[in-house]
Amino acid sequence: MTAVTPELDGRAAWPAAEFTARLRAVTATRYHDRHPFNQRMHRGELTPAELRRWIAARFHYQRHIPVKDALILAGLDRPEERRAWLRRIHDQDGTDASGGGIERWLRLGEAAGLDREELWDASRVPPGVRFAVEAYVTFCRRRPVLDAVAASLTELSAPDLMRTRIAAFEHHYPWIEAAGLAYFRTRVTQGARDAEQALALVLARARTPEEQQRAVTALEFKCEVLWALLDAVDRSGP
Amino acid sequence: MTAVTPELDGRAAWPAAEFTARLRAVTATRYHDRHPFNQRMHRGELTPAELRRWIAARFHYQRHIPVKDALILAGLDRPEERRAWLRRIHDQDGTDASGGGIERWLRLGEAAGLDREELWDASRVPPGVRFAVEAYVTFCRRRPVLDAVAASLTELSAPDLMRTRIAAFEHHYPWIEAAGLAYFRTRVTQGARDAEQALALVLARARTPEEQQRAVTALEFKCEVLWALLDAVDRSGP
Repeated sequence: MTAVTPELDGRAAWPAAEFTARLRAVTATRYHDRHPFNQRMHRGELTPAELRRWIAARFHYQRHIPVKDALILAGLDRPEERRAWLRRIHDQDGTDASGGGIERWLRLGEAAGLDREELWDASRVPPGVRFAVEAYVTFCRRRPVLDAVAASLTELSAPDLMRTRIAAFEHHYPWIEAAGLAYFRTRVTQGARDAEQALALVLARARTPEEQQRAVTALEFKCEVLWALLDAVDRSGP
Repeated sequence: MTAVTPELDGRAAWPAAEFTARLRAVTATRYHDRHPFNQRMHRGELTPAELRRWIAARFHYQRHIPVKDALILAGLDRPEERRAWLRRIHDQDGTDASGGGIERWLRLGEAAGLDREELWDASRVPPGVRFAVEAYVTFCRRRPVLDAVAASLTELSAPDLMRTRIAAFEHHYPWIEAAGLAYFRTRVTQGARDAEQALALVLARARTPEEQQRAVTALEFKCEVLWALLDAVDRSGP
């Protein structure tokens, strides 16, 4: 993946600040907070059925997060790098049955009237959602670890989205118990910390213009995954 | 991978006891404790140079163990399954810089007169060792998780080997400080526990004759990996 495209030919690598700005520009313009379905959700316009459909679809995404993190782990060479990344798997799987992010998402589903078995039953997830999640996992399985870590940088925009979402849910969907929103609350701080860690790793590893461009492209790809997932949720309903 | 080979056609799955006995028979007859180089090591016949060559080669294997465990992790679907397997990565990488199995192996190398950078420098590892380790990691990356877990069942024979090895090193190679043997001591109990856990997982997942045969074949493959590694160490020296 070191083919020199015309616009890279001959230029030097971006300084860290410019590279960071280019990565941030991707999420600022392509993150799924701009998706019409998300905007309807945050304006309080979703029906309970639509909200449940979104929760079930996003659970399918959530359950695969430790899988992609394990694939990233397998691409890191040193114990200290792996120790730092392993925390994410703990965050999502929990360190005991009382649970982490996956358990909190199941509780959000229950608060919205879905039962656990419905959430675990992937056959009920719209094909477009399954394909988007599969595309992300396959990307992390096949591509160099730099690309997979760069793809995780949608976390740069996640904490703001979480804050907006908590307020929107409390205001517009009071039929969902406040305790069900624990996932979003936890991700405000976890997401900020994860984004900082991943950004440092990407800055350290992407040293050539080609590697930097690959990181930007990977982040664009990840935005497409999240966007396609919402497209599929939006179109799968009545 | 469900092709029915002639000898499987029509027969029922083995009961758990028979399946377990067949797995144990693989390590009883093909484990690398029988390899001529290992037998020379345990009889005290290795020169210091040969012993250092073996330590460096096995370090190359050891550093890839968390990689294969992360690949197995990526194949497990539920948080409780991943939590159980994640412990292995902690064991090998440590939970802080004071270290786990990899750090203990580096200390064994130091006790034998190798420095850390020499051990991390893969370019000094004989090609046959690199290829054997790569074959194992690729197997875990590409094959179903049942096969990768079954391959780990060489642990069934590891604790006995560790006990024999500690005694052999203390008796024949007193120039290696006793503290350097901490890796072997730790693996006596960790290996027994890991083997028990992996065996339970294989028994639960291999339900058809085809799956059981795949597990046996995976364990045979892993014995070939360990054997080929020792062949390469044996042949790479003066």
